[in-house]
Amino acid sequence: MRGAQALLHTLVDGGVDVCFANPGTSEMHFVAALDDVPAMRPVLTLFEGVATGAADGYGRMTGRPASVLLHLGPGLGNGLANLHNARRAGTPVLTVVGDHSTAHKAYDAPLDSDIDAVAGTVSRWVRRSATAADVGADTAAAVAAALGPPSGVATLILPADASWDEGGAPAAVATPAAAGRGALDADALEAAAKALTGGEPCVLLIGGDAGLAEGARAAARIAAATGATLLAETFPPRAERGGGIPAVPRLSYVGDVARRQLGGARHLVLAGARSPVTFFGYPGRSGDLVPEGCSVVTVAGKDGPAATALAALADLVAPDAEAPVEPGRRPDLPTGDLTAAAATAVIGALLPEGAIVVDEANTSGVGLGPATAGGPRHDWLTLPGAAIGFGTPAAAGAAVACPDRPVWCLAADGAAMYTISALWTHAREGLDVTTVVYNNAAYAVLRAELAQVGAQLGGAGAGAAARRLLDLDDPTLDFVSLARGMGVPARRARTAEELADALRAAAAEPGPHLVEALVPPVAR
Amino acid sequence: MRGAQALLHTLVDGGVDVCFANPGTSEMHFVAALDDVPAMRPVLTLFEGVATGAADGYGRMTGRPASVLLHLGPGLGNGLANLHNARRAGTPVLTVVGDHSTAHKAYDAPLDSDIDAVAGTVSRWVRRSATAADVGADTAAAVAAALGPPSGVATLILPADASWDEGGAPAAVATPAAAGRGALDADALEAAAKALTGGEPCVLLIGGDAGLAEGARAAARIAAATGATLLAETFPPRAERGGGIPAVPRLSYVGDVARRQLGGARHLVLAGARSPVTFFGYPGRSGDLVPEGCSVVTVAGKDGPAATALAALADLVAPDAEAPVEPGRRPDLPTGDLTAAAATAVIGALLPEGAIVVDEANTSGVGLGPATAGGPRHDWLTLPGAAIGFGTPAAAGAAVACPDRPVWCLAADGAAMYTISALWTHAREGLDVTTVVYNNAAYAVLRAELAQVGAQLGGAGAGAAARRLLDLDDPTLDFVSLARGMGVPARRARTAEELADALRAAAAEPGPHLVEALVPPVAR
Repeated sequence: MRGAQALLHTLVDGGVDVCFANPGTSEMHFVAALDDVPAMRPVLTLFEGVATGAADGYGRMTGRPASVLLHLGPGLGNGLANLHNARRAGTPVLTVVGDHSTAHKAYDAPLDSDIDAVAGTVSRWVRRSATAADVGADTAAAVAAALGPPSGVATLILPADASWDEGGAPAAVATPAAAGRGALDADALEAAAKALTGGEPCVLLIGGDAGLAEGARAAARIAAATGATLLAETFPPRAERGGGIPAVPRLSYVGDVARRQLGGARHLVLAGARSPVTFFGYPGRSGDLVPEGCSVVTVAGKDGPAATALAALADLVAPDAEAPVEPGRRPDLPTGDLTAAAATAVIGALLPEGAIVVDEANTSGVGLGPATAGGPRHDWLTLPGAAIGFGTPAAAGAAVACPDRPVWCLAADGAAMYTISALWTHAREGLDVTTVVYNNAAYAVLRAELAQVGAQLGGAGAGAAARRLLDLDDPTLDFVSLARGMGVPARRARTAEELADALRAAAAEPGPHLVEALVPPVAR
Repeated sequence: MRGAQALLHTLVDGGVDVCFANPGTSEMHFVAALDDVPAMRPVLTLFEGVATGAADGYGRMTGRPASVLLHLGPGLGNGLANLHNARRAGTPVLTVVGDHSTAHKAYDAPLDSDIDAVAGTVSRWVRRSATAADVGADTAAAVAAALGPPSGVATLILPADASWDEGGAPAAVATPAAAGRGALDADALEAAAKALTGGEPCVLLIGGDAGLAEGARAAARIAAATGATLLAETFPPRAERGGGIPAVPRLSYVGDVARRQLGGARHLVLAGARSPVTFFGYPGRSGDLVPEGCSVVTVAGKDGPAATALAALADLVAPDAEAPVEPGRRPDLPTGDLTAAAATAVIGALLPEGAIVVDEANTSGVGLGPATAGGPRHDWLTLPGAAIGFGTPAAAGAAVACPDRPVWCLAADGAAMYTISALWTHAREGLDVTTVVYNNAAYAVLRAELAQVGAQLGGAGAGAAARRLLDLDDPTLDFVSLARGMGVPARRARTAEELADALRAAAAEPGPHLVEALVPPVAR
C-alpha cells in the first residue's frame, strides 16, 4: 500500500471522511488514491482559503475534523487566514500540505519554501512524514491532535515520496481522552458562587461549548437566580439559539459599547471565554475591558469544560431555578426601503427551522441577535479570529456537514470578495446555501474607525485619498453577475419586500442561491 | 510628525510612490496619513494577494519597489503566495504589515498571530519598528533592502503605536551599492569561453537581467559565433522581446522536453540562471536536468550581473560577431474554431507595439513564444515562483507602472480564479489591461500529471473521484459575467475571428477589458 492510500484509509477509519481540496502536482498520488477509498468525499475548491474556511465550518458543526489538501507553501499561505480563524475558534481541522519529494528538496525548486515555519503559526500540531511507512501513524496522530482536547488545527506535511512510495499501512486513531474538556475546578466554582451571590454587581461571560443549548440554559438559570448580567463572547464559534433556548446577548465588538455592558461590574465570572479585551488598541486607551476593581473568576478557560462548569455552578447557586424559556417572537415583515435594519427584520421573520447561520455581516449585521432569538431552533457561527473571508467558505463546510439543514450565509460585501469563489463550490456540490450579500459599497467598519482617527487627530475627518481606500464604489460590485458567473442563481433586492420574496424563492428550491441586498451603510 | 507620516515621506522621498493596499483597523493612521502625502498613490485591492501580485508586476517593470499595505498576520497570509513569486523573481517589493500596538500585543487579541515567522519565509529583510522615532530609519533601510542588490522582498512590521505616535522623522534612503549586481568573475568567464569554443556541444542558459534586450543580444552573438544552443530559463521574471531582439527559446516546464533540449550537452554555461532542475520530483527520476557528464560553468548567478557577464563573454568568444536581428514575422490571422493554437496565432498577429504581456496561460500558452518573437517590441512577464494567481494582479501592477503601454494578461481559467477580484482594481483604476481568459474548464496541467501517475501505477488512468478534482466544469465558469460583475467590459470568443474582433475592440477603447476564449484543453 502506498503512503497516500495509508493516509486515506487512516482518515476514513478514524472518522474523517471529507476532504476539501485544491491540489497540485505534488499531491497527485493523494488525488489518484481517492479512487481507491470511495468513503472519502473530495470537495474541490478553486482557492485554498475556501478549503480551509470550509473545514472550519464543517468542524464546528460536526465536532470532527475535515481534511484539507493544500499544495506546498503557497497553497498553505492562501489558506492561512481561515486556518487562523479555525485556530481561534478551536475547530478540529486536519491540514495535509503536500511537499516536494525528499530528494527534490535539495534543489530548492521554484515552489519550495519553509512550510514548517508557516504551518507552525496556526497549528497545535505539525509533523512531516519521513517515509511512506510513517504516514499511517502520523495521520492517526494528526487526527488525534485535531480532536484534542483541546481541539484545533493539526498539520501533516506530506513529502511526495512518502505519498507515492509503497510500504504504508493504516493506523488506528487513539480515542480522545475520557476527560473531555478537562476536570472541574472546585475552588473556582466556589469562588464564582460567592461572587454571584454576594450582592455586588456581577457579569457572567460565557464562551466555547457554553454557546450550545445546555450551557446557555445553565447560564440563564444562574443569571435568573442571582441577578447577574449574562453575556456571551463577541464572536462565538457556534451558538445554539431559538426554539426557546435562552437568548444570550453578546459582548459588543465596539470597545465603548462593551465597556458600557461591563460597566459597574464588581465580579466577572468566565466560563469558556477569555478575559475580555478590545479587538484593537487605540491611543491612550487600555485594551483590557475588565472594569477597574472588578475581580475575575474563571470556572472554565477558553477550551475548558464550560457547559459542565455552568451546570455545576447552577446547581450551587440556582438549585431550584428552572431554565427560562425564551418566548417565541419574530419581527414583523417590514416593507419599503431596504436598510440593514429592515434586512435584519426580514431575516428574523423568515429564518427557517434548523437553519445554520454563518454570520459575516459585520456592520450590517448589528441587531440580528435580538431579531432571531425568538425564532425557530438554529445555529449561529461567527468569526472568533476576526479575519474576514470566512463566510461563504464556512457556509460550504456547514452545508457539507449538515446536508439536511438550510444554511444562510450573511455576508458583508467587502468580506465576501475575499473568497468569492466559494460560490462555485456551492454550485458544484449542490449545497443548500442561501447567501445574502449586504452591498453597501464600503468597508463600513473601517469608515467608522477612520472617523475615530480623524476625531483624535482634531481633523474633520479624512480626505479623499484615505476615503478612497475604504469605499467599494467606482465601480460598484454586482454580486448578481458574480454569482451567475459561478453557476449560482441570484437576484437583487432593493426593498424589504424584494428581499423577503427572494428568500422565500430560495427556500422553495434546492441548491444554492444568492441575494444581493442593496443597503446603505450603517452609521455607528 | 507621526510615525505613519514619517513612513510615507520616507517612501516618496526614496522613490516609492505607489501603495497597493488592503488596510484594516490597525493601519488606519497610515491610511489617514495618505491625505498628508499626496505624492503617494494608493491603489485599493479587494484581497491582499492582489496587492502583492500587483507589487510584483510593478517592481519588475520599474526596478523600484511599490509598497504594499497589509493587515496583520491574516493579511500577510493572504498575500503570501504572490510574495513567494516576488521572492523567486527577485522583485523589489516593500511590504508594510500593520500589527497591534505594542501594549495591545500583551492581550493576544483575536487577530494576533506570529507575523514575524510568516514574513521571514518570503523576505530578504524583516524588521519590526519599535517606536515612531524608529520608523523613518527603518523604512529607509527597508527600501534599501528591497532594492538590493540583490533585490527582493523587504518587510516592515509596523505596530499601530509606532504609526500613530508623534516623534517620527523621515530618513533618506541610502543609494544602492555602485557595484550593481556584483563584479565579474574573470576565471568563470575564461572557463566559459573555453567550454564554448572547445568544439563540444554546449548550452548557454540565460536568466535574470539577461532576459532584457542587451543580454539577449549578447547571448545571441555568442551562440551565433560558437554554435552553442541558446536557451532561457523556463519562467523569466521579465524578457524584452520583439522589434528585432533575438528570440531566445525557453527551457520547457515539462521535464522530458527539457531533458531533450539539454540532451547531449557537454558543457552548460549559466548566466543569471540557476542550474536547471525540474519543477517537481517524480518516482525514480532525478530532478537534476544537467546531463550526465556535462560540466557547468556559472558566469553570473541568479541575482548576478548576467547581462554584463554575457557582454564580456561575447567580447571574448565573438568579438567580431554582430548581434543577429530577429526577422519581423507574425502569424497569419487564423479562422474557424478557437483552439489554444488558434488563440496563440491571433495573439501573435495582433500583439500591439509596446505591449506588456503577463503570461499565466499555462498549458494554453504553449507556442506563444515563437508566435510573438517576430512581432513588435514588447515585454513578457512569467511566473518564476510557479504559484498561480499571479496574472491579473501582476497585470494591474504593470499597468500602474507603465500607464502609456497596453497590458495583455493571458490567464488560464484555474489560475484566474485564485485572485479574480483583481479585475475590480483594473476597473477602479481605469487600467489599460486586456485580460484573455483561456476557459478550457479544467486544471489541464494537472490532468496531464494525473495521467502520468496513472501510467506509473499501471492503471488506465484515474477514476471519477480523482478526475473530479481536476475538472472545472459542472458548472462551467462564466468569465464574462464575472468581469461585468466587477465593472470590466467583457465578451466571449468561440472562434478565432471572434477573438480577433474582441482584441481589436479592446484596443480601440481605453481601460480594462476581458475576453473569455473558449478553448478545448491542450493534450500534452
